Amino acid sequence: MAANAKVEVGILGATGVVGQRFLALLDGHPWFEPVWLAASDRSSGKSYAEAARWRLSIPLPARFAALPVFEAKPGGNCPRVIFAALDAVAAKELEPAFASAGHIVITNSSALRMWPDVPLLVPECNPDHLELIRRQNSYTKTRGFAVANPNCSTVGLVMALAPLHQNFGLETVMVTTMQAVSGAGYPGVASLDILANVVPYIGGEEEKMEYEAQKILGKLSSAGIEPAPFAVSASCNRVPVVDGHLESVSIKLRSPARREDVAAAMRNFRGRPQELDLPSAPPRPLLVTEAPDRPQPRFDAETGVGLRAGMAASVGRLRPCPVLDYKFTVLSHNTLRGAAGAALLNAELLRAEGWL
Amino acid sequence: MAANAKVEVGILGATGVVGQRFLALLDGHPWFEPVWLAASDRSSGKSYAEAARWRLSIPLPARFAALPVFEAKPGGNCPRVIFAALDAVAAKELEPAFASAGHIVITNSSALRMWPDVPLLVPECNPDHLELIRRQNSYTKTRGFAVANPNCSTVGLVMALAPLHQNFGLETVMVTTMQAVSGAGYPGVASLDILANVVPYIGGEEEKMEYEAQKILGKLSSAGIEPAPFAVSASCNRVPVVDGHLESVSIKLRSPARREDVAAAMRNFRGRPQELDLPSAPPRPLLVTEAPDRPQPRFDAETGVGLRAGMAASVGRLRPCPVLDYKFTVLSHNTLRGAAGAALLNAELLRAEGWL
Amino acid sequence: MAANAKVEVGILGATGVVGQRFLALLDGHPWFEPVWLAASDRSSGKSYAEAARWRLSIPLPARFAALPVFEAKPGGNCPRVIFAALDAVAAKELEPAFASAGHIVITNSSALRMWPDVPLLVPECNPDHLELIRRQNSYTKTRGFAVANPNCSTVGLVMALAPLHQNFGLETVMVTTMQAVSGAGYPGVASLDILANVVPYIGGEEEKMEYEAQKILGKLSSAGIEPAPFAVSASCNRVPVVDGHLESVSIKLRSPARREDVAAAMRNFRGRPQELDLPSAPPRPLLVTEAPDRPQPRFDAETGVGLRAGMAASVGRLRPCPVLDYKFTVLSHNTLRGAAGAALLNAELLRAEGWL
Amino acid sequence: MAANAKVEVGILGATGVVGQRFLALLDGHPWFEPVWLAASDRSSGKSYAEAARWRLSIPLPARFAALPVFEAKPGGNCPRVIFAALDAVAAKELEPAFASAGHIVITNSSALRMWPDVPLLVPECNPDHLELIRRQNSYTKTRGFAVANPNCSTVGLVMALAPLHQNFGLETVMVTTMQAVSGAGYPGVASLDILANVVPYIGGEEEKMEYEAQKILGKLSSAGIEPAPFAVSASCNRVPVVDGHLESVSIKLRSPARREDVAAAMRNFRGRPQELDLPSAPPRPLLVTEAPDRPQPRFDAETGVGLRAGMAASVGRLRPCPVLDYKFTVLSHNTLRGAAGAALLNAELLRAEGWL
Repeated sequence: MAANAKVEVGILGATGVVGQRFLALLDGHPWFEPVWLAASDRSSGKSYAEAARWRLSIPLPARFAALPVFEAKPGGNCPRVIFAALDAVAAKELEPAFASAGHIVITNSSALRMWPDVPLLVPECNPDHLELIRRQNSYTKTRGFAVANPNCSTVGLVMALAPLHQNFGLETVMVTTMQAVSGAGYPGVASLDILANVVPYIGGEEEKMEYEAQKILGKLSSAGIEPAPFAVSASCNRVPVVDGHLESVSIKLRSPARREDVAAAMRNFRGRPQELDLPSAPPRPLLVTEAPDRPQPRFDAETGVGLRAGMAASVGRLRPCPVLDYKFTVLSHNTLRGAAGAALLNAELLRAEGWL
Repeated sequence: MAANAKVEVGILGATGVVGQRFLALLDGHPWFEPVWLAASDRSSGKSYAEAARWRLSIPLPARFAALPVFEAKPGGNCPRVIFAALDAVAAKELEPAFASAGHIVITNSSALRMWPDVPLLVPECNPDHLELIRRQNSYTKTRGFAVANPNCSTVGLVMALAPLHQNFGLETVMVTTMQAVSGAGYPGVASLDILANVVPYIGGEEEKMEYEAQKILGKLSSAGIEPAPFAVSASCNRVPVVDGHLESVSIKLRSPARREDVAAAMRNFRGRPQELDLPSAPPRPLLVTEAPDRPQPRFDAETGVGLRAGMAASVGRLRPCPVLDYKFTVLSHNTLRGAAGAALLNAELLRAEGWL
Repeated sequence: MAANAKVEVGILGATGVVGQRFLALLDGHPWFEPVWLAASDRSSGKSYAEAARWRLSIPLPARFAALPVFEAKPGGNCPRVIFAALDAVAAKELEPAFASAGHIVITNSSALRMWPDVPLLVPECNPDHLELIRRQNSYTKTRGFAVANPNCSTVGLVMALAPLHQNFGLETVMVTTMQAVSGAGYPGVASLDILANVVPYIGGEEEKMEYEAQKILGKLSSAGIEPAPFAVSASCNRVPVVDGHLESVSIKLRSPARREDVAAAMRNFRGRPQELDLPSAPPRPLLVTEAPDRPQPRFDAETGVGLRAGMAASVGRLRPCPVLDYKFTVLSHNTLRGAAGAALLNAELLRAEGWL
Repeated sequence: MAANAKVEVGILGATGVVGQRFLALLDGHPWFEPVWLAASDRSSGKSYAEAARWRLSIPLPARFAALPVFEAKPGGNCPRVIFAALDAVAAKELEPAFASAGHIVITNSSALRMWPDVPLLVPECNPDHLELIRRQNSYTKTRGFAVANPNCSTVGLVMALAPLHQNFGLETVMVTTMQAVSGAGYPGVASLDILANVVPYIGGEEEKMEYEAQKILGKLSSAGIEPAPFAVSASCNRVPVVDGHLESVSIKLRSPARREDVAAAMRNFRGRPQELDLPSAPPRPLLVTEAPDRPQPRFDAETGVGLRAGMAASVGRLRPCPVLDYKFTVLSHNTLRGAAGAALLNAELLRAEGWL
């Protein structure tokens, strides 16, 4: 491959909301070119424009409209690198099959996230976890492997926690989420359920946040990932917001720290994506504001420009907690940094680190 | 006064959202009859229908429409018992003036809530705090006094905490609120701020919740109220909901308790209003549900019938907390149990206990 | 049947949103007692509480929770009188089958509305259309028959038009609707489609409004219903409102009329339900307001008490139209007067007129 | 002035919602440079960042944050060209004063729109109306003058009507609007009024639409503007949408036209801004869609890139009207094409035509 040739990629689950975000982000991406779209049997055989009910406010890029939608199975003209945006049930079956067939599966689904040998990757937080890839059976046999990004409600939290964990050690994390409806896909949340309402329950979400955060910030050892030694308690709520998960967080640190040190640790947080200046890397992963009433989903979730829009997490209201040490509010864009953008940043890191 | 004669009452701040709720609740109340309405200078001299921009979905009771609106000062034909729904600044000046002039001020404002001699009353939780009245200067001199109800975000929390504190002792409380726009009055929250958005800040609200909870559940001693010995940490958010404050709560108990014991303590919670069968008393102060995704503001905030509608708090999702002991969700109606209904229940208790 | 014995009724499609409204309204109804609930195969065999995802803010009446859900077919213990809340496809097959089997089918679906022999009934507007029943084949053979109520967006319009048509003659009607999400059932409209948005299209709705209005206000002759001789143009939009269809209407009259005469015709409009004082009849079918900015869905849709709540249509902003003659806004509750309440009022009229 | 030097401009009413949009659009504008900001007395003396409560989701351009806010009066360092975003009362007094003092006032307010000598400009529709400027008193005396853009609900309508009027002649226009809350400024519409609700009234709006449309599409003669000879009837509603006014329109043409001709006239519509390729000119003023359920405010209002975003109007659902000739839905962005972007396009036309 020429140094600047684009990597051809496929998309599994291309017609759903996250699949649509993949296409929107990949349109004009400097490194990747979508050439193969696959979806459920119901869609295969149609053109993409026919098969997908496009739900983004940016229009469907014209050059993708006529692409055929294929059946979701390995082989044929399916390229080696696959972005996967399947539902968890389909993912559990198809993603390992693609990896075993030699494909590199960069997945947004929850199916493989907690598999011991699958990196649950937030490139700013745990790029070293990519080493897990070598332990995957498929990698040994076919050089195929899978890399996952976290749940949309986990990623903003973990980005805010990472610099605190690195600098002061985390002992305890309590988080209450107010999550946007786009996190549930399309059609997802019924309007009759959520208009002028809050639903204090999202199935499986609290458990995901609790164990994913520990894995992402865990230590890689010869035995695998050792979960980070802090307790997490999550309470998850759905609110009538379109995009952007807002979270009220309280934390207890292992080493005492002044407010300004906590704020500085967040502000100064940088990682491999920033070092490598990856195309989707936000210049600063954490935008810390001193405005009294920010961040807010409608105003702050999509901050940034081009591929970097919606890739930073915003932190505000950092203040002492009367029970633990500090409280703050964190916001991240759930279908960008929390889904398609996360997988894309993972792919960029994989390429920059020579895995593709 | 004949045993069944109604007590004539006045309303200070009658034209605002809480004042309107007072009128709606007092229309047909078996014990109280509104005869005197007062509001800001701008309104005085008009009829109530002219002065108030009626914002409830139930219509303005016809017999109040023509009542004149008076200036907000003691004297004249102002009756002894006054419901007060003023903003905090006006309240701080006017409420003590009314009490000193011999009036009984049953207030919803925050102005006097933390005054050491003013009972911050939730009739199910601390009816014994009424004894504080005797220590008020105005009571000694003129038999006038003031009684306050808590902030709209405090009352649901405290109702859920009371049986836990009584039965097991509370050590720690963490709460994140998702509050309805009606809590900010009218016009209150601008639609441009809150449509499809969450605002993670409500000025002064977190402090109010933290210290009010400790006062309400505190112990009456000869020295005054000793704050309850538990730490409270509150994070307050505004959500696009009309009525009903939803709160995600985690608590640590002093004595270990099984989940069923915690649930039973809540379910079995009763207080003086239930004993006395006060007209606005909910039969059960806490409605504990096992439904996985309830309570929800639009469906559950106004549960109940007549005067008792919206007077119970709803509790759901009681489950272990990985950090503290238990987590649950509590919902209460912010302009009924959290404002006008709270003051009315206070008035009913005062009458039943012989204070009026 | 004893004079005051209740009529036993069944409900087809009992688990949907309209089916739920039927149960809520029939709980405590003086004339009807639900004894048989039926739904799709998927639900049959379960208890009602298991089969239905209850979506009303009033709780499921306890005595219905344990009722078994039957298969939707005639025979067995299915009573003679059936309320039907099926989707149009199922209705088209099942409703005629029930009528042929001797049942009286009081349906909310669109399937039979335009059948020439089926009365499309708004009891205030066209009670004489009940005579069509005698022409139904099923009636001749088994005394079974069907009676339909109009589409939820038609009924408020027609109620406002009826007195104008009766008094002045209508020549032209133009209407733009802003319809609540509950009109689409559950799950119905996806929140991603409607949050902070308007969808300017509801499949089939405009056609329904246009021809239903003409049938309802049409003349019964020996040849059937002669459609009313006015043109109707409807533009239908979905808005993020829970309950209540709001419609901007302009009309041209055949005889000139002053504004006060138009208003008086609306205010004075009464029909058979008011004459007979049917249990669900609103005392006044049309509530005409002079407030500049009413009616509004959240404040006015459910006006009224008990069974009569949400059964009147509200009219406001009556003013000259620079193109036609007059403009006004009409609001009606789409799941009460526009669905379950409409069918119930039809049933009440049928009983009062001796058809049951 | 060098050919490519930027024109220095001032902004009257810089701190309001429209003023903020001016700054956002002027940041990086190729022709104009804001150097002077003015607002009410309350703000003057502060820095812009202090004085304005920034309500856009794009951040306040850093280089404007420190600009001082001046008193709103002519003279001092106030530049010749002024964008005005004052409320109508202030505008009525200040705008003529600025024009008399030799300033060119490009105003968004309603104050002067119907003044006979003030062009009510939509550059695609009536660029020839600029000739009115020569008749303004201030122009004769000081070369100062005023140019207005229409009301936010008028502009999308007029853009859709213009090609129909030009090609087929318009006889009658009926329009029902569903308007976004940002059209009312900030704080504007109270959330308690509009959450899950529709308000069927916007003060003065219907009259504005009715007479502004006739003026804009009117003929310039020596006697002034002769209003276009079609009747307009508008019904205006406020809906819970952030940005984007949606309108259901029915029209009667003077010459019969087939649907494809009507659609083609709209699609092919171009004007002076497109000829001149003005920086804010949308490549096509009207985007005509055949999608059954578009345009929609959240998805389509801001279509376009950079300065051209939100400057086209979107038309959909073109279909026969059973009463008049055709019906369609039109959408335009109320604070871009309907306010700040409109004024900016006016300024661009003025400069390109040599008036600045």
